[in-house]
Amino acid sequence: MIKVGIVGGTGYTGVELLRLLAQHPEAELRAITSRKEAGMPVSDMYPSLRGRVALKFVEPAAAGLSSCDVVFFATPNGIAMREARALLDAGVKVIDLAADFRIKDVALWERWYGMQHACPDLIAEAVYGLPELNRDKIKGARLVANPGCYPTAAQLGFLPLVEAGLGDLTHLVADCKSGVSGAGRKAEVHTLFSEASDNFKAYAVSGHRHLPEIRQGLEIMAGKPVNLTFVPHLTPLIRGIHATLYVRLDGEVDLQSLYEKRFANEYFVDVLPAGAHPETRSVRGSNLCRIAVHRPQGGNVVVILSVIDNLTKGAAGQAVQNMNILFGFPENLGLQQIPLLP
Amino acid sequence: MIKVGIVGGTGYTGVELLRLLAQHPEAELRAITSRKEAGMPVSDMYPSLRGRVALKFVEPAAAGLSSCDVVFFATPNGIAMREARALLDAGVKVIDLAADFRIKDVALWERWYGMQHACPDLIAEAVYGLPELNRDKIKGARLVANPGCYPTAAQLGFLPLVEAGLGDLTHLVADCKSGVSGAGRKAEVHTLFSEASDNFKAYAVSGHRHLPEIRQGLEIMAGKPVNLTFVPHLTPLIRGIHATLYVRLDGEVDLQSLYEKRFANEYFVDVLPAGAHPETRSVRGSNLCRIAVHRPQGGNVVVILSVIDNLTKGAAGQAVQNMNILFGFPENLGLQQIPLLP
Amino acid sequence: MIKVGIVGGTGYTGVELLRLLAQHPEAELRAITSRKEAGMPVSDMYPSLRGRVALKFVEPAAAGLSSCDVVFFATPNGIAMREARALLDAGVKVIDLAADFRIKDVALWERWYGMQHACPDLIAEAVYGLPELNRDKIKGARLVANPGCYPTAAQLGFLPLVEAGLGDLTHLVADCKSGVSGAGRKAEVHTLFSEASDNFKAYAVSGHRHLPEIRQGLEIMAGKPVNLTFVPHLTPLIRGIHATLYVRLDGEVDLQSLYEKRFANEYFVDVLPAGAHPETRSVRGSNLCRIAVHRPQGGNVVVILSVIDNLTKGAAGQAVQNMNILFGFPENLGLQQIPLLP
Amino acid sequence: MIKVGIVGGTGYTGVELLRLLAQHPEAELRAITSRKEAGMPVSDMYPSLRGRVALKFVEPAAAGLSSCDVVFFATPNGIAMREARALLDAGVKVIDLAADFRIKDVALWERWYGMQHACPDLIAEAVYGLPELNRDKIKGARLVANPGCYPTAAQLGFLPLVEAGLGDLTHLVADCKSGVSGAGRKAEVHTLFSEASDNFKAYAVSGHRHLPEIRQGLEIMAGKPVNLTFVPHLTPLIRGIHATLYVRLDGEVDLQSLYEKRFANEYFVDVLPAGAHPETRSVRGSNLCRIAVHRPQGGNVVVILSVIDNLTKGAAGQAVQNMNILFGFPENLGLQQIPLLP
Repeated sequence: MIKVGIVGGTGYTGVELLRLLAQHPEAELRAITSRKEAGMPVSDMYPSLRGRVALKFVEPAAAGLSSCDVVFFATPNGIAMREARALLDAGVKVIDLAADFRIKDVALWERWYGMQHACPDLIAEAVYGLPELNRDKIKGARLVANPGCYPTAAQLGFLPLVEAGLGDLTHLVADCKSGVSGAGRKAEVHTLFSEASDNFKAYAVSGHRHLPEIRQGLEIMAGKPVNLTFVPHLTPLIRGIHATLYVRLDGEVDLQSLYEKRFANEYFVDVLPAGAHPETRSVRGSNLCRIAVHRPQGGNVVVILSVIDNLTKGAAGQAVQNMNILFGFPENLGLQQIPLLP
Repeated sequence: MIKVGIVGGTGYTGVELLRLLAQHPEAELRAITSRKEAGMPVSDMYPSLRGRVALKFVEPAAAGLSSCDVVFFATPNGIAMREARALLDAGVKVIDLAADFRIKDVALWERWYGMQHACPDLIAEAVYGLPELNRDKIKGARLVANPGCYPTAAQLGFLPLVEAGLGDLTHLVADCKSGVSGAGRKAEVHTLFSEASDNFKAYAVSGHRHLPEIRQGLEIMAGKPVNLTFVPHLTPLIRGIHATLYVRLDGEVDLQSLYEKRFANEYFVDVLPAGAHPETRSVRGSNLCRIAVHRPQGGNVVVILSVIDNLTKGAAGQAVQNMNILFGFPENLGLQQIPLLP
Repeated sequence: MIKVGIVGGTGYTGVELLRLLAQHPEAELRAITSRKEAGMPVSDMYPSLRGRVALKFVEPAAAGLSSCDVVFFATPNGIAMREARALLDAGVKVIDLAADFRIKDVALWERWYGMQHACPDLIAEAVYGLPELNRDKIKGARLVANPGCYPTAAQLGFLPLVEAGLGDLTHLVADCKSGVSGAGRKAEVHTLFSEASDNFKAYAVSGHRHLPEIRQGLEIMAGKPVNLTFVPHLTPLIRGIHATLYVRLDGEVDLQSLYEKRFANEYFVDVLPAGAHPETRSVRGSNLCRIAVHRPQGGNVVVILSVIDNLTKGAAGQAVQNMNILFGFPENLGLQQIPLLP
Repeated sequence: MIKVGIVGGTGYTGVELLRLLAQHPEAELRAITSRKEAGMPVSDMYPSLRGRVALKFVEPAAAGLSSCDVVFFATPNGIAMREARALLDAGVKVIDLAADFRIKDVALWERWYGMQHACPDLIAEAVYGLPELNRDKIKGARLVANPGCYPTAAQLGFLPLVEAGLGDLTHLVADCKSGVSGAGRKAEVHTLFSEASDNFKAYAVSGHRHLPEIRQGLEIMAGKPVNLTFVPHLTPLIRGIHATLYVRLDGEVDLQSLYEKRFANEYFVDVLPAGAHPETRSVRGSNLCRIAVHRPQGGNVVVILSVIDNLTKGAAGQAVQNMNILFGFPENLGLQQIPLLP
């Protein structure tokens, strides 16, 4: 049984962490912090947790985080980088669900995130927490940078092809669609029900912060530069990301076999049979990524379809998966929920 | 470990049974039947079950149901009444999720359901499977009539008041709203996305089959006739029933305390604090019923709000709850999923 | 051609007014005010109006409202009461879409709205703008109090019965369901897509501001006190209100004929054939109210179903209808949009 | 005033035609046929049309179509090709909303549509009814092949670039997303609310019938072969198509100006300001196409965003636009509805 703390648990990744950790047989929830809601029982904000999570939100100072075994940051960008060092020094493992430690190139991070980084040295130490790519490094890490939601879906979809050195890396396209929960629980006009339902739109076409994160991952897989066009869209569903990936490819390759073999031992990646189309609801509430690979009309373009639940495999679920790896638990412990369908 | 069979598992109550039973530590899924889909792997129809349910649909004759310990009927009305006796004779417990055994008055049943009943004697034996009302009878039953979705939400909401002999039973109103999954997985125009989304309507105001079922339950609680107006509505969500119940009541009563005491030992009924409004999503995917009781402006009308997930507490979850009771398992075994929110 | 101004047009009733007035053959849009957005082209906020509305939002002081023929207040409660007198003094007709002039009993208004009224004498003068009830008074009015959305649906549904002196007025129930646009365009957590979609809940059961407004209307129709229980619910659709009304009634009455006769000459009220169930989408984007009247199983409860589009007949459309009456235009001028279905 | 008939009006394109034609000042609806629903008032199926369309569905033989000025086919593929000649011979103009006359290469059509074509000679005569491309030819046509929904959004988006000879035509990508009404009003499981809502998926990645139609259009614009990858997706909204188009482009081009100039005189095409993202709801219920053109980070990929309402500009609205051209009416007559937002 390990002692777990959560910093900033009032958002959707926070409540998803609580849902998963409250059912985890080896995790003991010790504290969840919120400056704004200190004193409020968690289940007053999230009635789904009534009877299951007895904690109240507490002030960070009163949370006793340094006596935890692991602390999750479910905070806006820029918080974890200021608080992680003290916890690490106290021997606490840190898993940051925000973006503070994802990009290795500090200058690049600062440009996309519009702030100065508080601890560039920890960036170097942090391990990018995509287990299917980095499992061994995660095992020994103190600080895990949990991947973004789009980057998880896109990187897992590209992974077998790019690792195998296949495809024209000078012209990759990732057309991605996200449910609205990806925008968080902030009160904003554009994510109101009356704005976002019965509607579909692209956003941030000129550049989204997940672009450098995906590109960094692909370049590590490829061992060389890649050129990626990434267009995110907002689609009227609560949970779910669908990545449609386009890669130019000449020559014969058994793509189905390539994908099946690469993920054969990955509990959370499910390669669908040839010709299938994964649905976002088929992973709703679960830590799974389902992938299908197509080559329409046998032409020179590969189309990869990759779906995840943005709050689970795209955030809190992957964070718990990383926690399991850090502490030597079975990787799927507490993460075997069957997707809720319909 | 008990051996479990499902008859007619291609609908939404079927897949929900599979979701719950695949995660149940004491249930071994042995067979699931479908004449139409025999031979198809269950997970081809429901990709959410890939890697979790290895069964294929089988012809009923080939299912070996008579060697199961319990068989669930997730069939249209009129099937279980023809097949239950053979199973009971073979020593198999039967839980019918359809309506064949819910109404004790055979003539009344035949009028509402438009067919002749095949085994009126089994109606007399069958136990109505609302555990919060009938737990002791369920324990020794061979045949359980699993309640309808609206009847579960409405009866649990009325229960404490009616049992206590309070309120004007000559003029009860149950204004109920259901998500679209309540209509099942049949291909019909009125439940198409383009018909049912961004839309709200009442239906069957002249009379719905759940009316006699709710009334029967209330009359048993009250020990006298009741007069109930029941209006169902279709609302654009997948899972969830919200019952808004109106009871005329004179005199002072501590309703909050009445409700809290009545359900104090019920794991699956959660009485919210005074003044609260339960949301359907707060029970999504769980076997819970959440209830709030109001008396607006201290007047002479009590308003009770009761929410369930129609596929779980309103169907498959309650059926598993009944299975747990039948076999002496802890009543919440395999039914502790935390609702999926958001 | 009359000159029209709008105060506070950034909300949903504002954009709906713009949609209707931009297509109205006798209305010339002169100004639309917003302190916060002054200088922004209206079509930047509402791209649906690109190419159709060339106005920019302006500061109220710069709007030249006193030279308009009519000014609509699409503002929060408490604004129109401070600004109406100056406009009236300048000879401008005023139509308030907020609640400032709806309740005749000033003390009652002040209790429900939590503020002191700025001009009680204008309350006395104001005409409640439900044309089907008050058409003659509206014709000569200077100041029209445009009804609330729930009150429009509920009053039109009760009207024939109550006017005819039928039913038990000591125990009326109005169970009402609203789309989310009724909550306006404010950035708030509870109306975010991820909170309000795939969800259903009641709210304000202890008392909603539309209760005294509906009750006042019913008491005027009945000529005596009524006792009303009103429960509003939030349902996951953008536009639409569905009122389900319950009235206890003894004795034989030809309800269908009563309703058809009462509304025979009302362009915007459509009484459906006996047995029908109106859908909210059947009035989407139109100024219509569709009503069906039922008496389930011939019992002693009448159930009336009434649907409107909350932004049109429940707000902006009715306001334009009132404008048409004030200026002697055909009542349906510019209001003949066919509902958008599907 | 022209006399108008509709063949097969029970689907969504049928009701949309009725909505538009009932408000068209120069169209007189004479007949609407349906074998299955003959005798039923149109407004019984579509209550939105109550009071506005008095027609009943009639048997085709009784419809008097040959005395109409124009007949719309809102039928499944394969009907118009069998019935068009008789009408043309009678001097009736024909507008086919299905695919029978869209593809000039008969063998290609027969392969994609899986049937033998009944009148290949009429294919040669038919004019592809995309007015922004073919206006002059439409003017003199007898038979108009109304474009598909995806092809309308995609071709208008690619048009300025391809016409100008810009971009790498060997590697075009059209990632398109459609609302569920695009699948029609057929009772099918995969478009049920409980299947299609809160869900997102690609479909027909191996090949969709709109692929050859889009490719044909692009090749006509370009005057040479093009290589196009087209992936359609189903998204949980009723109306709307969003096309995200990717074109590789080297060299400096003022794309914003190119697009604005090309569509400067097109009433129904709205080029948004640089940097904008069109939303599907901004065209809901209107005949508009809104387009934005991006070049992310100044790189070598152009991203074009194009939105339409699939039932209006993608079907019935464009058909009425073609009717206006055929009969010399102003092209936007009866088509000036402002989109319904929110």
